[in-house]
Amino acid sequence: MKVYDEIPENISDRITSLRSEMELEGVDVYIVPSTDYHHSEYVGEYFKARQYMTGFTGSAGTAVFTKDKAGLWTDGRYFIQAEKELQGSGVSLYKMGEPGVDTIEEFLEKELPQNGVIGFDGRCIGVSEGTAYEKIAEKKQGSLCYKYDLVDRVWKDRPPLPREKAFLLEERYAGESVQSKLGRVREKMEKEKADIHLLSSLDDIAWLLNIRGNDVEYCPLVLSHLLLYRDRVELFADHNKFPPEIQGMFEKNSIVVRPYEMIAEAVSSFQGKSCILLDTEQTSYALYRMISQGVRVTDRENPEVLMKCVKNDIEVENIKKAHIKDAVAHTKFMYWLKKEMSERDAPEKPVFTEISVSEKLEEFRAEQEGYLGASFAPISAFAEHGAIVHYSATKESDVPLEKGKLLLTDTGGHYLEGSTDITRTVAIGDVPLKEKENFTLVARAMLRLMNAVFLYGCSGANLDCIAREVFWKERVNFNHGTGHGVGYLTNIHEAPINFRWKEGKTPAPVLEKNMVITDEPGIYIEGSHGIRIENELLVCEDEKNGYGQFMRFEPLTFVPVDLDALLPERMTEEERDMLNVYHRRVFEIVAPYLDEKERVWLQTYTRPV
Amino acid sequence: MKVYDEIPENISDRITSLRSEMELEGVDVYIVPSTDYHHSEYVGEYFKARQYMTGFTGSAGTAVFTKDKAGLWTDGRYFIQAEKELQGSGVSLYKMGEPGVDTIEEFLEKELPQNGVIGFDGRCIGVSEGTAYEKIAEKKQGSLCYKYDLVDRVWKDRPPLPREKAFLLEERYAGESVQSKLGRVREKMEKEKADIHLLSSLDDIAWLLNIRGNDVEYCPLVLSHLLLYRDRVELFADHNKFPPEIQGMFEKNSIVVRPYEMIAEAVSSFQGKSCILLDTEQTSYALYRMISQGVRVTDRENPEVLMKCVKNDIEVENIKKAHIKDAVAHTKFMYWLKKEMSERDAPEKPVFTEISVSEKLEEFRAEQEGYLGASFAPISAFAEHGAIVHYSATKESDVPLEKGKLLLTDTGGHYLEGSTDITRTVAIGDVPLKEKENFTLVARAMLRLMNAVFLYGCSGANLDCIAREVFWKERVNFNHGTGHGVGYLTNIHEAPINFRWKEGKTPAPVLEKNMVITDEPGIYIEGSHGIRIENELLVCEDEKNGYGQFMRFEPLTFVPVDLDALLPERMTEEERDMLNVYHRRVFEIVAPYLDEKERVWLQTYTRPV
Repeated sequence: MKVYDEIPENISDRITSLRSEMELEGVDVYIVPSTDYHHSEYVGEYFKARQYMTGFTGSAGTAVFTKDKAGLWTDGRYFIQAEKELQGSGVSLYKMGEPGVDTIEEFLEKELPQNGVIGFDGRCIGVSEGTAYEKIAEKKQGSLCYKYDLVDRVWKDRPPLPREKAFLLEERYAGESVQSKLGRVREKMEKEKADIHLLSSLDDIAWLLNIRGNDVEYCPLVLSHLLLYRDRVELFADHNKFPPEIQGMFEKNSIVVRPYEMIAEAVSSFQGKSCILLDTEQTSYALYRMISQGVRVTDRENPEVLMKCVKNDIEVENIKKAHIKDAVAHTKFMYWLKKEMSERDAPEKPVFTEISVSEKLEEFRAEQEGYLGASFAPISAFAEHGAIVHYSATKESDVPLEKGKLLLTDTGGHYLEGSTDITRTVAIGDVPLKEKENFTLVARAMLRLMNAVFLYGCSGANLDCIAREVFWKERVNFNHGTGHGVGYLTNIHEAPINFRWKEGKTPAPVLEKNMVITDEPGIYIEGSHGIRIENELLVCEDEKNGYGQFMRFEPLTFVPVDLDALLPERMTEEERDMLNVYHRRVFEIVAPYLDEKERVWLQTYTRPV
Repeated sequence: MKVYDEIPENISDRITSLRSEMELEGVDVYIVPSTDYHHSEYVGEYFKARQYMTGFTGSAGTAVFTKDKAGLWTDGRYFIQAEKELQGSGVSLYKMGEPGVDTIEEFLEKELPQNGVIGFDGRCIGVSEGTAYEKIAEKKQGSLCYKYDLVDRVWKDRPPLPREKAFLLEERYAGESVQSKLGRVREKMEKEKADIHLLSSLDDIAWLLNIRGNDVEYCPLVLSHLLLYRDRVELFADHNKFPPEIQGMFEKNSIVVRPYEMIAEAVSSFQGKSCILLDTEQTSYALYRMISQGVRVTDRENPEVLMKCVKNDIEVENIKKAHIKDAVAHTKFMYWLKKEMSERDAPEKPVFTEISVSEKLEEFRAEQEGYLGASFAPISAFAEHGAIVHYSATKESDVPLEKGKLLLTDTGGHYLEGSTDITRTVAIGDVPLKEKENFTLVARAMLRLMNAVFLYGCSGANLDCIAREVFWKERVNFNHGTGHGVGYLTNIHEAPINFRWKEGKTPAPVLEKNMVITDEPGIYIEGSHGIRIENELLVCEDEKNGYGQFMRFEPLTFVPVDLDALLPERMTEEERDMLNVYHRRVFEIVAPYLDEKERVWLQTYTRPV
């Protein structure tokens, strides 16, 4: 909702200033990534250096500057947006993954002069990335300069680091004491024979200490690093953030708060013979390089990752409550939307747009007790906008809703009882057959995966095909994962579980009881429409017999799948049963919270097909 | 079909002799594995040392002897058989995978005395296994003795190494010249900067040199090792095996034959600075240890593995022909079996047994042109024998067929045009409802996987769930892979592709066009019945569009799925369609080769359901 038209006028001045700083420090190529010091997916205003230097507002992208070139690398989700936002800035767009387009590494190899220097703020670059740059520099007998934040020198009105208050997530929400969590992590440290555990990932710290904050939009996290020793904890954060109840908990658990920026000094002071447990995927290059030579580094996935991914029983009970609230809000919204839009011919009605209906949905959520805010930037995409997977309506792009097309909303909320993530695609009036066919395909895929039964030991890589097979039979596909883990009042995208048939660097872990994962197939027809239907699922134990422990999913999301857009005759009997069973549950769960008119509507919209 | 009753009388004498040899060499624990010098799945008579020392005839198992203990380790497939065969031998059965049962490693750690010596014939033990034993010995300040074959000293009437003739697989069958194959492998060597490539796997050697032999029952391979240099080849094998046409081909390709046992000397003579490419998974511990210190070893999967797994177009055309022959033979057999058994009430009819019908099936195959013999030990399992996954009928176990039960045959043939592997389960008379329900489940799983459509990039680990999901929905499972790669006149189980949701040490590779894989779900109800239905599939390219390259399977096997055992009402409409389409193809392909009565029968047995 920002007005970007003005930005490009400043960009070239900013680049000129940056180049002066580069010359001053003898840097030939300077890299400005998108992330903060914590490898976060979403970052606070202070960390939007790449946006400041290029004008590109997307969440993923890396800028690279040489003496005479300026480039931005981003992926397919952002090509259209980036092209628009970079206009007139002098920054060239490098479309990642397109044939003939150099990667950043290839660009560096071409542009770096002999004995040249690659510069970046090492706190914003991961270990493997930094190491790759190191190798490129070596090939040219050059070097790295990673200790300076050159953008900071030219960013005159840089927003300050956030000073938002943190709050204690009480045990009735967190389900486990800090003492117990520290104990479990220390057991892991003992197994790895580690004396120190360095933790920079904000969601892991929030989980470990049962604290939440407001330092990053949509992510209720506290900007901090943490050092866990066998007998004490050092938390590097702004101590003003912590109210007395947190301070009391800190004292009880021997947690000492030290200034945020002191982490570097602390890490560099480790003595030889100590062994530090860290996850290079979650540690900045700068911190990693500060570890003295003699210190032994044990590089493992942070033990907190799997611990927080498996929710405890209290968290699960809470999450179910949060989802009921969310289902009530969303169902009321659907009723309101259908009703308002069916009366759209009356001339006195106001115009509804992508943004205004999204705000209305937010209002319905805000009515629910314990609602804290949106859990991610809401997507409200009408008609052809639905085909842009990461579309975010702006004042310029916002369009009024009209009959005969689909509205896709992908939204979610944070509640004290957990976070939600739900996508529904809703027919406004009667939509064309093609839209209905595609809607039915997506619904079938979502339902089939939700109803999967599997043996313990399966990962999301094994099960993804259960959703995709209905797509593949039609020779179509969607270019995103079918699902991701969901954090408990932390990050909405929570590693490491997912539904992805293509394994990443590390194979997806086994799906364990009490994990929470989304199920969100979609179809995107450029220039026409986009459809995605997303339920959150809870991993549950099913029957155990001589064949092993069977597992299944329980839906957490209870919002109707719009029957106005569905062709039941395109579904198998088994799929229709799946939908009918689901809709019966939706009605049972949501109806008690509705008024009479809404209840009657819901009954119709959850009727058996 | 051997009579095992006599064997146990000799076993204890043999063990006593072995213990004398152990004492002579100062060996405390001696390990006798099942394999040959080539990591083969099936081995020739010369290599059946473990069978000789224990009396256990199963294909998988390891014997371990100490001064006062004798044990055999084998897996669940062989528990019943091993218990029976070890009776009175003094050898204890260690059931692998059962709770509370020591692994071989655990046993060694307990039994090996301080400063003790673990002995084994290092030519029969793989690198990783040998290394594991090394570590156990180290813990006890002990050592290994891997240079002596102690069983050889006590094995008086040991069969000689096979002297069977080899034959040249002409290019019209192999589809690619030796020159071309050597060129492709040398390219790989160049990439890996290797001067020498050591190859011990018999199927890789057979593929690379377009030679076949008869040295291992069911596996038409030539006992040999191979050293590939940039400019020449050394083949270590009995030179008497090679007829003039092979000698001519050898000459043309600078292939020199050296005595089989000289491989050790050749490997130990490599000079420092050379780089040897080998696959430690396919190299014996003894050979590996013979490589001098200075020599650089590049440990990679043998490049031949993926090359031979992707069949060339000529091979594919041949394979299709072989499968038609096999389908005709098998269909004739089914007709014969159904007809004979339906007339079983007539008293003058001979009794048919598991073995006699299996021999009849072999007869039908033998009628086909170019038939070379069975491609693996045929399984013919009636009623409850079907539930024993690796059942092999013996004189003692053989039972007469009778009405009301199922016969499972898992058989295959080698033809010059390739090898086949097919399982059918056939109702003899009318079988009970439970059998029909299970048969239908297995047929559905087989059909669904056969009809899968997938994006290029999928592996068998992604797709396995398409077959298993119908099982899992019923809370049942089968404890074997859903499919394996198939060799072309080499090994019937050809690595590395498979359908296995649980990934092994190395992830399953992407399914490429022209790979051949089996699709063989099954269900096994102990004491009652076993059902497996197996088709071979060819990996094919399907539509390529904006979403990517779609892939699918084409069936290679064309034999009816027994409609007498099927409950069409338990199938979805889609599944019935799959079966009807398949059966229509079966009729089209097989009918032209049948006589009138058989054709009429086939028409009935491929009718739409």
